[in-house]
Formats: sequence, C-alpha cells, structure tokens
Amino acid sequence: MSRRVPRIVMKFGGTSVADLDRIRAVAARVKQQVDAGAEVAVVVSAMSGVTNQLVGYCQSLSPLHDAREYDAVVATGEQVTSGLLAIALQGLGVDARSWHGWQIPIRTDDAHGKARIEGIAGETLIEQMQAGIVPVVAGFQGVGPDNRVTTLGRGGSDTSAVAIAAAVRADRCDIYTDVDGIYTTDPRIVAKARKLDKIAYEEMLELASVGAKVLQTRSVELAMKERVRVQVLSSFTDGGAPEEGSLPGSLVVDEDEIVEKELVAGIAYSRDEAKISVRHVPDRPGIAAAIFGPLTAANVNVDMIVQSTGADGLTNMTFTVGKADFARAKQVLEDARDEIQYGELQTDSDVVKISVVGIGMRSHAGVAATMFRTLSERSINIQVISTSEIKVSVLVASEYTELAVRALHAAYGLDAA
Amino acid sequence: MSRRVPRIVMKFGGTSVADLDRIRAVAARVKQQVDAGAEVAVVVSAMSGVTNQLVGYCQSLSPLHDAREYDAVVATGEQVTSGLLAIALQGLGVDARSWHGWQIPIRTDDAHGKARIEGIAGETLIEQMQAGIVPVVAGFQGVGPDNRVTTLGRGGSDTSAVAIAAAVRADRCDIYTDVDGIYTTDPRIVAKARKLDKIAYEEMLELASVGAKVLQTRSVELAMKERVRVQVLSSFTDGGAPEEGSLPGSLVVDEDEIVEKELVAGIAYSRDEAKISVRHVPDRPGIAAAIFGPLTAANVNVDMIVQSTGADGLTNMTFTVGKADFARAKQVLEDARDEIQYGELQTDSDVVKISVVGIGMRSHAGVAATMFRTLSERSINIQVISTSEIKVSVLVASEYTELAVRALHAAYGLDAA
Repeated sequence: MSRRVPRIVMKFGGTSVADLDRIRAVAARVKQQVDAGAEVAVVVSAMSGVTNQLVGYCQSLSPLHDAREYDAVVATGEQVTSGLLAIALQGLGVDARSWHGWQIPIRTDDAHGKARIEGIAGETLIEQMQAGIVPVVAGFQGVGPDNRVTTLGRGGSDTSAVAIAAAVRADRCDIYTDVDGIYTTDPRIVAKARKLDKIAYEEMLELASVGAKVLQTRSVELAMKERVRVQVLSSFTDGGAPEEGSLPGSLVVDEDEIVEKELVAGIAYSRDEAKISVRHVPDRPGIAAAIFGPLTAANVNVDMIVQSTGADGLTNMTFTVGKADFARAKQVLEDARDEIQYGELQTDSDVVKISVVGIGMRSHAGVAATMFRTLSERSINIQVISTSEIKVSVLVASEYTELAVRALHAAYGLDAA
Repeated sequence: MSRRVPRIVMKFGGTSVADLDRIRAVAARVKQQVDAGAEVAVVVSAMSGVTNQLVGYCQSLSPLHDAREYDAVVATGEQVTSGLLAIALQGLGVDARSWHGWQIPIRTDDAHGKARIEGIAGETLIEQMQAGIVPVVAGFQGVGPDNRVTTLGRGGSDTSAVAIAAAVRADRCDIYTDVDGIYTTDPRIVAKARKLDKIAYEEMLELASVGAKVLQTRSVELAMKERVRVQVLSSFTDGGAPEEGSLPGSLVVDEDEIVEKELVAGIAYSRDEAKISVRHVPDRPGIAAAIFGPLTAANVNVDMIVQSTGADGLTNMTFTVGKADFARAKQVLEDARDEIQYGELQTDSDVVKISVVGIGMRSHAGVAATMFRTLSERSINIQVISTSEIKVSVLVASEYTELAVRALHAAYGLDAA
C-alpha cells in the first residue's frame, strides 16, 4: 500500500530553545520526525529572555522608539535560533538550512511591531522539503512593502508557523510549548481538568480570547481560515515522534473532524475585566450611542453589555472593559457627563468573567440554564450575562473565581475520572 | 563663498558601542558632525562581547559548523547595534535609519565567513544622506550570490566602512577605535612613540601586516585602491567634531597628500614568526621548488627567505613562517626529506621580525645601513634580512625585541621631543 509522505511544520517556542542543550534536544525531536519519513519544516522563536533583553534596549534608549528600528533589532533573536538549530540538525546528520523572513519571503503589511502576514511563497520551501532539506524558519518576522524587517507582535511565531503550514500545504502544524495540550480548564484551579484530544477552531478561539493563553489568537484565526490542523504539545515530555492515532497533545481542527462533540469543551475565566455602570440615564433613543460613541473614539473596547430599565423613565447601562482601559474609560465618561446626563457612575474592577464554551451548544438547549442553576446553588450572584452561539459568559465577583470554575467543571461532566 | 557639503562615513568598533551609554555617546558624536553641516553615514560593529558569544554558540553546537549558518547567526550582532544607534540618533532629533547588508545591498562573493565585497549600490545611501537622513549600516556583513547573509571576517567592519565610503564617494572615512591614531611604533614599548598626523596607504599596509593591528589589512588595501582617505581616531577622547585643519587622529592617505615625507614612518615588530633552516642541501637547480612546493601545497605561507651557499657544494635555505603554520611546515619538510635530500632541519620559534617602514626610503639610500649599524652597536645578531621598496625587515632573537625597537626609533629621529 503506497502512502503519501506526511508533511509537518514543527514550531518551538522560547522556553523550548532556551539554551544550547535544549536546541540539541529540539534537533533530536526533529530528526525523529525526519527518520519516521516525514517532510519537515521548523519554525523557531528566540531563545527565552533574548527578546525581552532586546525590547529593553530599545525602550531604554527611547520610550517612543521607531517601530521599524524596534523590528530590525528584535527580529534578530529568531535569526540566531534558526541558524543554531540548523547547525545542530546538521550535527545529527540532518540536512537543514535557516531562513529569514525576507529570504522566503514572508510578505507582511507595514504595521511594524504588529504586522500581518499577506503572503508566503511556499514553493521554495516545498522543494527543499521534498529534497530532504529541513527549512528552519525564523518565526515572528517578515518583510514589509518597503523591504524592511517587520515583526508580528508577541506570540507571533505561532502565527508564522500556521502561515508556513498553510503555504507548504502541511498535513499538520505541531506547536511545541511548555504545556502538553489544551485543557478543559486551568489545571492550577481544577485538579481534575482533562486534556482535550481534539478541539474545534471556534472553541479554541473562545478559550484563547477569554484567558487560556496557549496559542496566539491570530494564529487560531489563521488556522481556521486556512484549515490548518494545529497540534499543541509539550517539548518537555518525550512522547517520541507523535503519530496521529495516539496524539500526545491536543489537536485543533475543523469541527467536522470531531466525531463525538461534547456539549461543553471547556470553562475559561478572565480576570482582565472591569465593570462600569452608568446609572439613572433618561431612557431615550440614542442613549447607547451617546455612551459608547466617546468610548470607541477613545479606543476603549467594550465587552459585555446589559441595559436595565426602571419604572421611573430612567435606565442603567452596565458593561465591562479591559483592566488596561479602565482608568481611561472612567475619564471619558466623566468628561461626557453633561452630554449623557447620567445620575451616577458605579465602577468595580474586582470582577471575573467566567465562560462556558462548546460547539455542542449550537444544537442543545439548556447549557445556560445549567450554568445559572449551578452558580445559584453556590449563592454566586451573576452581575452581567452575555452569550454567543457557542459560549455563555457571566460576570461575578472575583472572590468566587475558583469556586465557580470548579462547580461548572463538575456540572458539565468535565471532571477526569 | 560657497563650499560643498562634506560627506563623511563614521565607523565605530565594538568597544565604542559596548553598552547603551556608549551608543548614546556615539549618537552625540554623529550629531556633532550633522550639526556641523556634514552629510554622514555610519557603520557599526556588534556590541563588544556579542560576536564572541555568538561564535561560541556555533562552535559549541558543532566545531565543524556550516559557514553559511555561522554567518546568519553572527551577523545579527551588527544588526542590533545599527537599529539601536538609529533609535538613539532619532532620540537626539537626528533623522536616521538602519540598513542591513542585504537591504543596500552590499554584494559579496560566496566565501562565507571571509567574504569579499564585490559591489555596493551607493545611490540610495547618497539620496538618504542628501535628504538629511543618516544611514546606520550594519558592518561586517553582506549578501552572497545565493541571497544568504555573508560576513567579511574578523575586523571586517573596517572594510565595510571603507567600501561604503567609496560607494558614496565620501570625503573621508573616520574609523573610531580604542586608540587615538597610528603611532611611529608600539607606545607600550617606546614611551616616546609619536602619533603620526598622516601616513601613506603603503606604509599603513606594511605596518598593519607586520603587527600594528589598528586597521584590518584588507580595509587599507581597499582604501588604497579606491583612494578613500581614512582617519583613525579614538571614540573615548572628546575632540569635538574633527576638522581637517587640526586632525585629532591619524589620516591614512595617498602619498601625494603628504608634503613632508619622513624617511621612516614607523618601526613595527611581529612575534608571529618562526624560523626554519633546511641545511646541507645539494646545491642544484630546482632546489627552491623542491622545498617550497610542498609547503605551498600544504597552504603554508613563507615570508622571509635567505639562501647561503657553502664551499662544499651544499647550500642552506632559511625562511620564516607564521607561528600557526610552524608545526605543519616541519611535518611537511620531514615527510619530504628523501626528495629534498637535506642533511638537517633546524628550527627556532623564539624570534621576532622587526621592520623599518617609510615611503621616503624610495628616494634615500642608507636606511638599511642605519638599521644594521644600530643593531650591531647593541650586539644584536641579525639572522635573516628581507627588503621591499619601502621596508627593511630583520629577524632577531625575540629577547632583543624592546631593545631593538627603542634603538631604531631613536636612530631614525622618531622619538618625541
């Protein structure tokens, strides 16, 4: 039986290549895949600590540094790792060469410091892989329209890896990190958290954006758009060359690939929330625009929103913003007091957003009801509710974080046996 | 009176950009030139210690590392400095941008690790300088015919600077280093050594190649070929913006620019010599070829050569090689004993080559005679002599190094008042 050679992109983060010994270990892991017959390309981050040092240099010289120069400086960290890993691979007898963003090229827009990939010419990399040469690509970087080096923002190497995987039409993109997969919730809070063998892109996006920081959000969006199968796994456990039958990590895939869809995939929480209530506002048309217009103009992202109307013709508008925007949001609203004509501003940053996520809830009612009942049984007061097609989120006082997450994890049957 | 704007390339070595404070000081020095009305381009080395660290990484992973990967890794040091200096300049209100070798481009051959510059497109840099933007060029690097990063060998940033100066048709290339100029001899040996205001390319080449390590030899050859005026000066003394009338350093120029040619410009010495005597060889045609052929084949560079013939039909061939080649040279000659048919091999690595250099000796006899008499008066035995148009070199026992250099420095009237 003839079987096509599998083509895999392997990405290693900063802790996985933190020193020469770990770079040697990464080389051995890549060699396992090559020896198993795969066509392999590798994407690497900078050795851990290097990027922070370079960023520190730039900030120390000028807090308002030129983002183009910042990129030119910071991108060198990944170039060093790619060259060193190529040398380590050659030392093991694996043919390899390093690639910088401009050499492939990985074309991006000109948003230095947070550039977006616009296109990757995959042909040369495919030729190299087919010839048995492992391309070792410097992650996190590309080249802009002005032929200058760009970087993709923190965590951007994940996005580099997914984009390379799409460009070379890889069967899988393996993201090696310091956790061994995606869990049903934070294992530091729930000892019975379970590793998920498979999770849908949409679920991963919701989990990432509400606080599970395993993959850069943009990399998941790109994987979903390009239908790249992403496997998250640890570079610190020796699972041997991962085989698809028994995946050691978690596979992020299209939901069609998930045969037994769980009702709920996971419970996430985010402490990066602050609540603002604009109280006693005359209930007239256009009141939402009057409140949220100035916030948008000030670049404040508003997340959950709830409006409650009283009998006296006055209404209350309650919403959440990120903690980093909290002070600015308050200032904007105080400045706009005369225009909005509210009675009182109430704020609270001692809150947490807890979310239940699962593609299964598209076809099953009752998920939200279970959530509300579970929290009610623990006497946890729900301050704000928001829902999407595959997610229910509630805002509660932060002191209940662990209690609420554990209770919900058990209520949806997610606890490990 | 209208005067053309001067155009200057400033090059800063590793100790000059060793940390952020020194990079700020370099930025201030560049700003002085800009404020004085010059068009300026800058070439920088890596922060001192960085290149050694990166080289150490490569060697630790594989002593026989791929030179192309070595170049990709090691060239990042200069990229960091160029970006940081551009940021520091912008912080002082000086418009600036960094340039990597591939962006200009600085085209080189494919001899990775010791590449030679083949061409630099200077037009874009000239446009930038004329627009008041200071190009900050990463030294030591270029891009090879295969579009991969190359490096020029240790000290290569000097060559980068001279090549950039030629490409932008600069009036001067200022090399900032940790010494304040070229001296008549090593000031550590002769307290009365004098700084030379001007020195001819040819003299500088002889001084560099016999042990005065201020400028990379290749950079001087290139300066001579392209007629680039090179000024060597210290980045650690505040001389203000150097003006040509009162040059704070030493200017390396065409000899036509040197009005009062000194008979002798300087006294150099090199301890990197070892002497080999092939004794009692039948004096027949082809004997030189029989001895030096195998040495050339083994990549051994032979320097001084003297042949002395006895009355018995036997001859002695004495010559010097670099200390690094000494063991190999001995082995080659022992292997070729039957072919050469010599009686005895005598070797001595406890020797020093002392050279008197000066373009003035082209038109003046007696320089060599003064040297021999001076050494004879100190009872210093001359083992080998070699001469060129502007140089006389002798090999003596290394214990006489300081005595010989001091005596010659005085004999040619070079002592400072």
